[in-house]
Amino acid sequence: MVYGIAKSETLQRKAETLQRLHKGPKILALINVWDMASARLVERMGFPAVATSSAAVANSLGYPDGERISRNEMLNVVERIASAVQLPVTADMEAGYSREPEQMADTARELIEAGAVGLNLEDSLENESKMVDVGLQVEKIKAVRSIAEIARVPLVLNARTDAYWWKGADPKARFADAVRRANLYREAGGDCIFVPGLVDKGEISRFLQESPGPLNILASLPGAPSIPELQELGVARVSLGAAPYRTALGAFRRLAQEMLASGTYRTLAEMAIPSPEIGALFR
Amino acid sequence: MVYGIAKSETLQRKAETLQRLHKGPKILALINVWDMASARLVERMGFPAVATSSAAVANSLGYPDGERISRNEMLNVVERIASAVQLPVTADMEAGYSREPEQMADTARELIEAGAVGLNLEDSLENESKMVDVGLQVEKIKAVRSIAEIARVPLVLNARTDAYWWKGADPKARFADAVRRANLYREAGGDCIFVPGLVDKGEISRFLQESPGPLNILASLPGAPSIPELQELGVARVSLGAAPYRTALGAFRRLAQEMLASGTYRTLAEMAIPSPEIGALFR
Repeated sequence: MVYGIAKSETLQRKAETLQRLHKGPKILALINVWDMASARLVERMGFPAVATSSAAVANSLGYPDGERISRNEMLNVVERIASAVQLPVTADMEAGYSREPEQMADTARELIEAGAVGLNLEDSLENESKMVDVGLQVEKIKAVRSIAEIARVPLVLNARTDAYWWKGADPKARFADAVRRANLYREAGGDCIFVPGLVDKGEISRFLQESPGPLNILASLPGAPSIPELQELGVARVSLGAAPYRTALGAFRRLAQEMLASGTYRTLAEMAIPSPEIGALFR
Repeated sequence: MVYGIAKSETLQRKAETLQRLHKGPKILALINVWDMASARLVERMGFPAVATSSAAVANSLGYPDGERISRNEMLNVVERIASAVQLPVTADMEAGYSREPEQMADTARELIEAGAVGLNLEDSLENESKMVDVGLQVEKIKAVRSIAEIARVPLVLNARTDAYWWKGADPKARFADAVRRANLYREAGGDCIFVPGLVDKGEISRFLQESPGPLNILASLPGAPSIPELQELGVARVSLGAAPYRTALGAFRRLAQEMLASGTYRTLAEMAIPSPEIGALFR
């Protein structure tokens, strides 16, 4: 580890804070960011932690989703964000930019060096078109755990399984597959389980019965329960993936369409954060 | 110049296209971008050119406005954007990251190497708190012109004067100051004059009488005429500065506020660009 003891202690404290935020009583609601201004806004508004979206970061830098951005570029953004805010930062690290546990350990080490105290780690490749072998994923999770112990930074590992929504998922088997993977990932050291695609209230309840423990729901999908409803169901964490960035781009596009159609700027007057408020974020 | 002849010819053609777009009959309407996805969207929507906002790029990377970002970091973003789109790219380069004509020449050279074919060059420093001596600004404009000639890329120089709205502007003298600077900048090689703060229709008309030639109006200010009205007045170019990025951040903040207040995601459903459409931008 290249960082000093002071930095390590700060990270340890932030990781502990982030761990606690997964243990209720209040659900941890995260709005995913992609750059420094969005991260600063989230901090300013009183969210308890900052989460990145890998797809949003990748798109913002000109890459499609799905590990087409390099590990270094992704870590560079994470490091900038982590140094721009005081809050604990959890980074979406796709499949860890790694095909084996050794590479995964490198990613985890560099992630801590970048100042993050949590990560999302998914078990599919190439935009959910291929699942990672479950045994290998377990080894990757253990590799992250080992690095976290060596660094004494209790990284919050949000173990994502795409068993539920990957392109080859069997509608009849996907629930059981997701539960099976979730339980293996928890056992290997996953602090929270993230199951994109799981939005039905009944299924969320059943899932929590079969895999008790912190669960992250992706609430940007149609039909997702509200945050109070998710809390009621016993969900520990809710996040929105790349949807906040897509919302930002949607407003941008609406303004662009208005310029082309009527040559006016009403969207701007309705939506824009005034300059002085943006300026204040960087003072 | 490190780029090859093919690249130089492409840039020459793009610069000529951008020059033509300033010569009517249609007004050139630009919506300023800050990253690759916003640039790709602008191209996809049929705008004829891509313009960056320096404040938006700086904020997105964690810097306040006003040349706190380094020249290299700014050029790095410009280069990424220029390679992400086919359209001519004009870059907001603040005061050129230069205090003297020699540095300005370096900036212009590197800007062409980054693939841009136009630039905004302003005549104030430290967020409009100090004006650059007019003689020095003229020398900086001439330095850009020289580099453009050597490179055979007829860079579109959008010469901005902050005489109208800088912090020390005298309300009685600012119009005449702006006209005086504008005419000196045109004479030195400015292709278009950019006067932030000038939004009153009568004043725009008077300005064009006293300084005939392409004029850029910043339309993100309250009271700005619509694009058809600006065209009617004889304005050649309209842009929005950092306001498109502030609009995007505004939608992001609205979603965040909704999460905190009611725990719902309506803003997302109303605003977000669907994932497949974002995916298609990067194919």
